[in-house]
Amino acid sequence: MNEKVFKKIRVVGCSPESYQKAVESAVVKAGASVHGMAWFEVVELRGAIQDGKASEWQATVEIAFKVE
Amino acid sequence: MNEKVFKKIRVVGCSPESYQKAVESAVVKAGASVHGMAWFEVVELRGAIQDGKASEWQATVEIAFKVE
Amino acid sequence: MNEKVFKKIRVVGCSPESYQKAVESAVVKAGASVHGMAWFEVVELRGAIQDGKASEWQATVEIAFKVE
Amino acid sequence: MNEKVFKKIRVVGCSPESYQKAVESAVVKAGASVHGMAWFEVVELRGAIQDGKASEWQATVEIAFKVE
Amino acid sequence: MNEKVFKKIRVVGCSPESYQKAVESAVVKAGASVHGMAWFEVVELRGAIQDGKASEWQATVEIAFKVE
Amino acid sequence: MNEKVFKKIRVVGCSPESYQKAVESAVVKAGASVHGMAWFEVVELRGAIQDGKASEWQATVEIAFKVE
Amino acid sequence: MNEKVFKKIRVVGCSPESYQKAVESAVVKAGASVHGMAWFEVVELRGAIQDGKASEWQATVEIAFKVE
Amino acid sequence: MNEKVFKKIRVVGCSPESYQKAVESAVVKAGASVHGMAWFEVVELRGAIQDGKASEWQATVEIAFKVE
Amino acid sequence: MNEKVFKKIRVVGCSPESYQKAVESAVVKAGASVHGMAWFEVVELRGAIQDGKASEWQATVEIAFKVE
Amino acid sequence: MNEKVFKKIRVVGCSPESYQKAVESAVVKAGASVHGMAWFEVVELRGAIQDGKASEWQATVEIAFKVE
Amino acid sequence: MNEKVFKKIRVVGCSPESYQKAVESAVVKAGASVHGMAWFEVVELRGAIQDGKASEWQATVEIAFKVE
Amino acid sequence: MNEKVFKKIRVVGCSPESYQKAVESAVVKAGASVHGMAWFEVVELRGAIQDGKASEWQATVEIAFKVE
Repeated sequence: MNEKVFKKIRVVGCSPESYQKAVESAVVKAGASVHGMAWFEVVELRGAIQDGKASEWQATVEIAFKVE
Repeated sequence: MNEKVFKKIRVVGCSPESYQKAVESAVVKAGASVHGMAWFEVVELRGAIQDGKASEWQATVEIAFKVE
Repeated sequence: MNEKVFKKIRVVGCSPESYQKAVESAVVKAGASVHGMAWFEVVELRGAIQDGKASEWQATVEIAFKVE
Repeated sequence: MNEKVFKKIRVVGCSPESYQKAVESAVVKAGASVHGMAWFEVVELRGAIQDGKASEWQATVEIAFKVE
Repeated sequence: MNEKVFKKIRVVGCSPESYQKAVESAVVKAGASVHGMAWFEVVELRGAIQDGKASEWQATVEIAFKVE
Repeated sequence: MNEKVFKKIRVVGCSPESYQKAVESAVVKAGASVHGMAWFEVVELRGAIQDGKASEWQATVEIAFKVE
Repeated sequence: MNEKVFKKIRVVGCSPESYQKAVESAVVKAGASVHGMAWFEVVELRGAIQDGKASEWQATVEIAFKVE
Repeated sequence: MNEKVFKKIRVVGCSPESYQKAVESAVVKAGASVHGMAWFEVVELRGAIQDGKASEWQATVEIAFKVE
Repeated sequence: MNEKVFKKIRVVGCSPESYQKAVESAVVKAGASVHGMAWFEVVELRGAIQDGKASEWQATVEIAFKVE
Repeated sequence: MNEKVFKKIRVVGCSPESYQKAVESAVVKAGASVHGMAWFEVVELRGAIQDGKASEWQATVEIAFKVE
Repeated sequence: MNEKVFKKIRVVGCSPESYQKAVESAVVKAGASVHGMAWFEVVELRGAIQDGKASEWQATVEIAFKVE
Repeated sequence: MNEKVFKKIRVVGCSPESYQKAVESAVVKAGASVHGMAWFEVVELRGAIQDGKASEWQATVEIAFKVE
């Protein structure tokens, strides 16, 4: 049957290096508990500042995975 | 006590027929893992196109269920 | 003179059958108290769930009617 | 090379019958001038009212098509 | 390594007393199934009306908790 | 028949004490002219400042009431 | 007592001349049925096109008036 | 048949005089390449500043035109 | 002349007690560096969680003050 | 070096005449305390009503100026 | 005359490497059919996941180009 | 006492290299006039195009700093 269903979860990845690492990290971590991840959507980009410099890149992503 | 609590999950239903089927399908599938579903909110409506025609109706719904 | 004015009201239609019936129902009911209805905009789509199935389709519409 | 590019156009489909027909109509009409249509997103749902009844269903969709 | 990851869940707290109780209740209930809760964001404030008076305060919060 | 219809009105309650009082006040006042109020949604929270202090709490709520 | 309450209505003013006329027209017309109007908020700006030129300016405003 | 279809394009008009001129200019320019323009929606209002004064009024409009 | 001008600043108040205290605190602190504060708008409500309980209420407010 | 930086401030201009005057007034007033203003964005349009007529036009603008 | 006009198109760039490449790719591809491109705005950031890893970076950009 | 207060400012960083550089640049520049910067939120991502290529990356960030 053709009626596919996906669930979505929101995950915040944090990286001292870049938003790309933050997103990659969020996806990999999410993959530890769900299977069939198919796509993600960036919901929010924030960051921490220490000693007057951007010190952490935080990306909130909504990850969709297929429900069998 | 009167302090009810609900959790919400996001589910994407897909149907080759209609948005109504897509929503119904999302709700039924969600019901396989959670109990006490009470209401849903349509968050997004999208679709796939094949051979120049709308071929799949995709509805993202946020489903609320009571936490006992 | 060409300075037309419309008023808008928000109405929530509910139907056990479909969003289309819910919208139609909202428009007809609104028509019982206002005249000159010209157009509507869908503001929100929600629904109720009973026994694990979508049991009611709720459409919030903003209806515009001409003020004479 | 893997760097795909899609363009998106906004199209408003209108139908005296239903939103589904309105969307289908928008997609088919768009297909007359662009190729490689892949997906669509519903951006807005409105409608016309005549004689106190919903008389036209208007769906604004954003259609994405692949650029070769 | 510094790549922290948080998950977020949406919870609706309801209280006959106040929004503050509704939020507190949502957080406590969420804590029964997840650990490492770090912050929350208020997403929506609604309420029920009975006998012409606000009778229930409903707060939807997005709660973030650390993933080990 | 099951096709319920609700109307919604926007009301701004103002209180020198708190947002809760402001909302309660808006609901009670609205009840003087409409019946069957069922729920409300908080749309906006603002306030006035006098002599360097928050002196008034203003809550805009959308109140839904059943149309018989 | 200091607990003021305002109601808000949405009105669409249309003018062949300008948005300013459209807003003024909406306010004046609304004043024919409500009293104590205090402020307005511009919600949407649209317009009609005829013979390739902007021919009508349409402003949707939310008007607040005091409830005695 | 009653299934009309409109396409929408986004155009930014700029005028040293006013937003009205900016919108009119956008519509006229758009009319040089499309036919059957029916309505527009103001999407964004911005402007340039020179020598401490607003020197240019920029209006982004979404223009809808009928597809034959 | 009647052309008043206000400036707006964004301030985040934090309180271990309530949102009301958080807002009051933000307004009072802002008053230490600006004069003529007239109104505020609540932009965001968040909070911190410690030991499984809401431990801090954070309110972001936009405060407007008159420019002489 | 090419890394330019701009700061943005929010200013509300009010005029008894028009939105254009309100914006112009906001820009000129802002220029009394900052230099290098480059562009503005209209964030909100509101107004006051007196004796049943629009009596003041209020435009909130976000003004960007270059940081040397 | 000073009344410049820009058109805007929406383009989705996809890259297996980064969002920067995705944006650059969208801009270059758009340049194949339009001239006078002046600026772009990032509208949405999404991505595909394969084998539990972010495998494609998708950036939707709105590109403005001058109309002669 | 535990009632911390933060102020937020909006800063636009521009870089010929990347969004990361643009954000870093905005944060560093903001640090020249404020102390106690704690976090930032990305509000908007735009860019300039020259000779058919993305030539500048512009990031608008909202930076929060503690008020002593």
